[in-house]
Amino acid sequence: MFVRLIAIRALVVFAGLTLTPLASGFDGPVEKKTFALPSYTTVGGKTIRNVKVGYETYGTLNAAGDNVIFIAHFYSGNSHAAGKYRPGDAAPGYWDAIIGSGRPIDTDRYFVVSADMLANVNTKDPNTITTGPASINPDTGKPYAMTFPVVAMRDSVHVHKALLDSLGVHKLQAVAGASGGSIQAMEWGALYPELVERIVHVIGPGFDISPFVVEMLDVWTLPIRLDPKWNNGDYYGKEEPVDGVGQALKIVTITARAHGWAEKTFGYKWADAAKNPADSMGNSFAIQDALDKAGAARGKSTDANSMIYMAKANQLFGLGDELKRMKAKILFIPASSDMIFPPELSKRAAERYRAQGGVAELVIIEGDGGHLDGVFNVAKQGEAIRAFLAR
Amino acid sequence: MFVRLIAIRALVVFAGLTLTPLASGFDGPVEKKTFALPSYTTVGGKTIRNVKVGYETYGTLNAAGDNVIFIAHFYSGNSHAAGKYRPGDAAPGYWDAIIGSGRPIDTDRYFVVSADMLANVNTKDPNTITTGPASINPDTGKPYAMTFPVVAMRDSVHVHKALLDSLGVHKLQAVAGASGGSIQAMEWGALYPELVERIVHVIGPGFDISPFVVEMLDVWTLPIRLDPKWNNGDYYGKEEPVDGVGQALKIVTITARAHGWAEKTFGYKWADAAKNPADSMGNSFAIQDALDKAGAARGKSTDANSMIYMAKANQLFGLGDELKRMKAKILFIPASSDMIFPPELSKRAAERYRAQGGVAELVIIEGDGGHLDGVFNVAKQGEAIRAFLAR
Repeated sequence: MFVRLIAIRALVVFAGLTLTPLASGFDGPVEKKTFALPSYTTVGGKTIRNVKVGYETYGTLNAAGDNVIFIAHFYSGNSHAAGKYRPGDAAPGYWDAIIGSGRPIDTDRYFVVSADMLANVNTKDPNTITTGPASINPDTGKPYAMTFPVVAMRDSVHVHKALLDSLGVHKLQAVAGASGGSIQAMEWGALYPELVERIVHVIGPGFDISPFVVEMLDVWTLPIRLDPKWNNGDYYGKEEPVDGVGQALKIVTITARAHGWAEKTFGYKWADAAKNPADSMGNSFAIQDALDKAGAARGKSTDANSMIYMAKANQLFGLGDELKRMKAKILFIPASSDMIFPPELSKRAAERYRAQGGVAELVIIEGDGGHLDGVFNVAKQGEAIRAFLAR
Repeated sequence: MFVRLIAIRALVVFAGLTLTPLASGFDGPVEKKTFALPSYTTVGGKTIRNVKVGYETYGTLNAAGDNVIFIAHFYSGNSHAAGKYRPGDAAPGYWDAIIGSGRPIDTDRYFVVSADMLANVNTKDPNTITTGPASINPDTGKPYAMTFPVVAMRDSVHVHKALLDSLGVHKLQAVAGASGGSIQAMEWGALYPELVERIVHVIGPGFDISPFVVEMLDVWTLPIRLDPKWNNGDYYGKEEPVDGVGQALKIVTITARAHGWAEKTFGYKWADAAKNPADSMGNSFAIQDALDKAGAARGKSTDANSMIYMAKANQLFGLGDELKRMKAKILFIPASSDMIFPPELSKRAAERYRAQGGVAELVIIEGDGGHLDGVFNVAKQGEAIRAFLAR
């Protein structure tokens, strides 16, 4: 299979084709599976019954159960990290460029697992399986809405650890993730120092959330809370706050981008070539129109309350003294133009980890795409990841 | 007076006092005056009748009318750039640290003028005088609301030029401003190349707005547009969208700040020491609570529609080929941690200006206060401004 894929790829490149299902990194069939726990008690002491999360695996678990890499997902993402469900899928998983046969996270060597978080925001996406405010509370038969317990990042990590136990995993060669995924990777390292060999912390905050981002997460979800249809979270079965969700996703996008990206992608183009923005208060620029439309489209599969719960989970991140328990080698990969978690935060965290005797490496994704360079351009540091996994 | 002030300042420093009215930079009495034009026709071709803007002056105009520096204000500011109206005022004008007797913009030498913009947002502040959407349309006897014409940055500049003509100004030694004020300074240079000797462009975009900021300005005013009380701008005499305005000002503040500022000012403190944010979705962090309260307080004197008009004026900025007309020497002063107009934008503009034969200098305000370092910490480059004015 490996040799055949390479041959086909060469043909594809030669023919000048750039989009074909066979060119995706992970070539096997990707299947969304479900992991269930009868109950889970949060770090805050609240018990949630009938917990379900979706997961995907790429590659094969070895007999020792020690060739495993876990991929944790970011705020608006899910566990679809690589490959395609069907050959005709429009795009592969978000980190397909670095996960697959022969790629830096090599599925010929590693058994790669990714799982949906608790309170994942994509509740209406059929390929996301999660337990959160949109789930039915077995005690009432109705959606939890804002009565769902607060869930911290490590609550998802605890559930994902139970998943890995069920699969027979005995060693994690690495936990890797971008943004919110990088936070979970740190939680894994602090919670399970004997299990986790390496952490790949891509576009992350280091060992605690930045207070600036605590406030930015408040701003991200503000349009939801201002939408009268949000109704303090009580909207299930009614008209949902889709406008607020769309505008919230718009803010997520622009704050996760940067000046160069905006200039290259949209420049000063008008939304409508016949409507000069100088002529009327209602006439806008292309970037405004495009991000409004993208937010609205994405908003259709996104749950408003879950965006608020996911913001809270990020806001609560901070390892404190638990950092001292961590043993994993850490590779920090900030993006040069990231304004959410600027490279300075990773540099400072790397110094702090070295000061306590830890092994910390740092490489930067150079670019002008902002925070999202850690998702779309992670392959720029793919070889650094490959080398780090071999150390 | 100059000698006496210095002596008193020395005493103040010696006594360890940090707040006293006599320590303000401009020592003379500051008075808000009104400049009126019977009518003004915008660059978009719309005529506004009964135009009024407030202004302040510091220092004395010489006989030749050529010792003048104009200070243009930023998005949420007004013409109160220096001094105090009354000795008991809580704070002096925003750039008092660099404007005054013996200060870099020395009122013993220069006649300094600052004026309120059209559509200034502070309509309910008695020290702001402006003409904008909250003004009465003489044709209807009612507030313009969203029928007020689109006003560009250069519309305010045209009105301010008429003000300076009325005062007998024949030469501008400099036009200086922060952020939106820096944009107006560029407009002055392009519109009146024979009049303007120097431009001090503090925390500015260069010669055109960044598309990233076009979108951020959209985000700034989003909470207003989402507030049902905004009612498409028709709220005068009714309940006003004060919640939307307060939340909008909150977004302005956090996006105009930076990571270091948030960490030093708030850290990870909880809004209420008895309410752990991990315990409940409603419990928040100190930074959230403080910015909510500051926005709400400031929102009481701020007009919702004017924030939208001011955002539009910023979005429309771009000199295009008119840059070639500019002759003024330019001093660029970006702030190192500014994420609205990062230093890279000023560096690029300086190179572009030099490439067309212009004189461009650049110094950076080092700090972690973000964009607002150009307002609160401009004195860090006060001596660079003093030296530039002497060249």
